[in-house]
Amino acid sequence: MSRLRFKISMSLDGFVAGPSKDLENPLGIGGLRLHEWVFPLTVWRLSQGLEGGEVNASTPVVEESTANIGATVMGRNMFGGYPGAWNTDQPWTGWWGDNPPFHHPVFVLTRYPRAPLAMEGGTTFNFVTDGIESALEQARHAAGAQDVSLAGGANAAQQYLQAGLVDEMEINLVPVLLGSGERLFDGLGDDLHGLKLVRTVATPQVVHLKLTRT
Amino acid sequence: MSRLRFKISMSLDGFVAGPSKDLENPLGIGGLRLHEWVFPLTVWRLSQGLEGGEVNASTPVVEESTANIGATVMGRNMFGGYPGAWNTDQPWTGWWGDNPPFHHPVFVLTRYPRAPLAMEGGTTFNFVTDGIESALEQARHAAGAQDVSLAGGANAAQQYLQAGLVDEMEINLVPVLLGSGERLFDGLGDDLHGLKLVRTVATPQVVHLKLTRT
Repeated sequence: MSRLRFKISMSLDGFVAGPSKDLENPLGIGGLRLHEWVFPLTVWRLSQGLEGGEVNASTPVVEESTANIGATVMGRNMFGGYPGAWNTDQPWTGWWGDNPPFHHPVFVLTRYPRAPLAMEGGTTFNFVTDGIESALEQARHAAGAQDVSLAGGANAAQQYLQAGLVDEMEINLVPVLLGSGERLFDGLGDDLHGLKLVRTVATPQVVHLKLTRT
Repeated sequence: MSRLRFKISMSLDGFVAGPSKDLENPLGIGGLRLHEWVFPLTVWRLSQGLEGGEVNASTPVVEESTANIGATVMGRNMFGGYPGAWNTDQPWTGWWGDNPPFHHPVFVLTRYPRAPLAMEGGTTFNFVTDGIESALEQARHAAGAQDVSLAGGANAAQQYLQAGLVDEMEINLVPVLLGSGERLFDGLGDDLHGLKLVRTVATPQVVHLKLTRT
């Protein structure tokens, strides 16, 4: 069965997004600091259609984390836009423009039904209203022999972690403080549900911690 | 001038002690899980007068962190016992027995004056009532050409970090969750006061993150 793989960038004080997330600040105030390590990388720039960049110890980690993914699951806040029911006049179509970087089916957790949204480049957003297990089952079916990526945000990640459904977690630990915002592990208690540290790769900008279920 | 060096073990969710700290549970419930990586090490066992043990990638990190220390600063809660004024009938003499493992002057931050307490093996506990700068100054004087160790706990560490007085911080990041307790970085905002990641050493049990002031 395809595995559920989750990667996320987190500050030293445990935040995965800054405070005051909104349309202008989708990562919250200061949240961009969690991702600065990736922007110079050739592998990331290529995924955005950009040339140039550099190769460092983070490169194979990023390559691995994006390889063999056939479907994505994400929370409503990650898909974004606004809370509550969908605006049918000007429907929100995600943060990523007309050609999102997924290129496979994406399953968005929401309380509000909505017809599937096909974008350019092979990405289709499917809106799942009957819970995290259903979304994962649909994503696994869509992924076939490949794995499913859990894209976040914090709330969706907490639900899958708490249910013990995450098979692999790559934390990109960034040695900065955010001080406030959304904590990855809030409400999870003291149980990682069998996830153990199996690999650490470090650069001065980020420490990649890979945990898998043993 | 001698440097202020701070090392502490922290969970993946940012806790350095579990909840419900008391005389029976000085590290709080579950807090011992933060230190299990060190107990098998020969270098730690030797410091406790024990034989045997093992050598692994953590060994040089522990050796480095204990080398060239001439004095220690700690908070009242780390020295421990109970809150409030000192009990003069049965004075608390620390967690560490008659021969504490410091073997140099220790400066304890407290609101309650108390005469210095000389223990076996060269450890003297000095009680400092006029603040963190004074304690550090006294410790630096006592340390001479050597460095000063900041032993914690979380509250004392936060005060020194917030004042920008920590020159080196070694976080022993343990890949477990505690879920509640004392967070290392509570109240610090988003400022590490120039501390940058300079070295990472990893084992499956612990990831050592060394940050120094640039």
